[in-house]
Amino acid sequence: MNQLKMLREINATSLFNKWLALEVDSASEGEVQLSLIWRDELGQYSGFLHAAMIGGLIDTACGFAAATVAGPRVLASNFTVNCLRPAVGEKFIAKGRIIKSGKNQIFTACDLFAINGVKEKLVANGQAILTIASFTH
Amino acid sequence: MNQLKMLREINATSLFNKWLALEVDSASEGEVQLSLIWRDELGQYSGFLHAAMIGGLIDTACGFAAATVAGPRVLASNFTVNCLRPAVGEKFIAKGRIIKSGKNQIFTACDLFAINGVKEKLVANGQAILTIASFTH
Amino acid sequence: MNQLKMLREINATSLFNKWLALEVDSASEGEVQLSLIWRDELGQYSGFLHAAMIGGLIDTACGFAAATVAGPRVLASNFTVNCLRPAVGEKFIAKGRIIKSGKNQIFTACDLFAINGVKEKLVANGQAILTIASFTH
Amino acid sequence: MNQLKMLREINATSLFNKWLALEVDSASEGEVQLSLIWRDELGQYSGFLHAAMIGGLIDTACGFAAATVAGPRVLASNFTVNCLRPAVGEKFIAKGRIIKSGKNQIFTACDLFAINGVKEKLVANGQAILTIASFTH
Repeated sequence: MNQLKMLREINATSLFNKWLALEVDSASEGEVQLSLIWRDELGQYSGFLHAAMIGGLIDTACGFAAATVAGPRVLASNFTVNCLRPAVGEKFIAKGRIIKSGKNQIFTACDLFAINGVKEKLVANGQAILTIASFTH
Repeated sequence: MNQLKMLREINATSLFNKWLALEVDSASEGEVQLSLIWRDELGQYSGFLHAAMIGGLIDTACGFAAATVAGPRVLASNFTVNCLRPAVGEKFIAKGRIIKSGKNQIFTACDLFAINGVKEKLVANGQAILTIASFTH
Repeated sequence: MNQLKMLREINATSLFNKWLALEVDSASEGEVQLSLIWRDELGQYSGFLHAAMIGGLIDTACGFAAATVAGPRVLASNFTVNCLRPAVGEKFIAKGRIIKSGKNQIFTACDLFAINGVKEKLVANGQAILTIASFTH
Repeated sequence: MNQLKMLREINATSLFNKWLALEVDSASEGEVQLSLIWRDELGQYSGFLHAAMIGGLIDTACGFAAATVAGPRVLASNFTVNCLRPAVGEKFIAKGRIIKSGKNQIFTACDLFAINGVKEKLVANGQAILTIASFTH
């Protein structure tokens, strides 16, 4: 199946992603781009994008990048987030990519950008390690 | 000010925490406990708790633990999450604690438990490094 | 085989561990303790224990803790280190433990202490994710 | 002072780096390259490069990258390592770079390559967060 179609179908099955209105903008082998429109409900106590969304975008972009080569049955065992700048923007774009795809594990990374008008600023980066589920939990 | 009172006030100022209905159960010097009641809207594609909430609970519990000694002006520079088991439960409890509090940085850790009936299971753990903001962004 | 005996045999096969004179003090199911005597050659530019040894002790204690339940064929996919205080001591003790042991992955953690006379101080902590090798590289 | 000269002077003051025979190949604003020649003494139990050297190279390349803009008084608070492939080579090259340089913290990343003849392979990657020391420990 087409990778973008597959990811949009997975995305539609997550009720939280629906609430977020998270969009899968593009996908190709080992790479994806997600976007999220800011609204006040997504804020932490200073009105910046809440760490939940920063981590959730990075984890999702990493998992979706892994899914472009391994299919939907990938599970994150670990994800790490660096908060580089206050995450303030009208829109956020997460660019996930595979660093190394192995038999049992996929190493991925993600950059998160805040968009304000025509300016794009790197506000966070991170990584995730995905395992390929070979069984039902 | 009383630590529990301070954290509940901070918690009330985050619109996302309000949407989550995140509760601060308890707080003392260097330690906090948060809880979150499951609802379908918090799910990822398999119906488990979404990574955004796993990361958000761990980051918030770590930040709040740091705030019990350093006050509300702490910022996470990094947080890391291990997904140990599928996060399935009626309720989730995050227990954050300070590992080491320094002049410029506070190292913290958090365990996240899923509650099902009387059973409590460790489903994720993680850590965060907080810096003490000495300036306005 | 006895776990302590197994780990001492593995330890003896690493030429770097021999150069370090790294000792396996104790081992039981899911737990190990390693020790390293300070000497000047182990120093970074300020004369503190070099990050290579901090990371190496944490990675090794985590891997050995995993090996107590999974046998010697474990490989670290990721390890993370927090440098909490300057690592200055006559001796260093790394206490590794399993957090969660799964079918394909073992999550572990480690605390690293500096010993000065009778004082023991936590100078670093960290974690590692181990996979169980089912094949030859 | 010239950045390469400064880093070579720092490198020369670390007795462990001297034992390693670690070389600073190049340095410019925000970027460094280090190299290490393989010898048996650097091996773990399978004869691959020991995690201590993998972590030590990544931490050092990150710290040196930070030092190109902030001077020698930088301290790592955290470093993270992904072991992507068995670290087997005649020589290892660590390429460190700054991701974001702030007033109090510098976020860095590093790729570690194994060289075999004319082939260069990414065997590990990682990151470090450096703080700028404003005081004596």
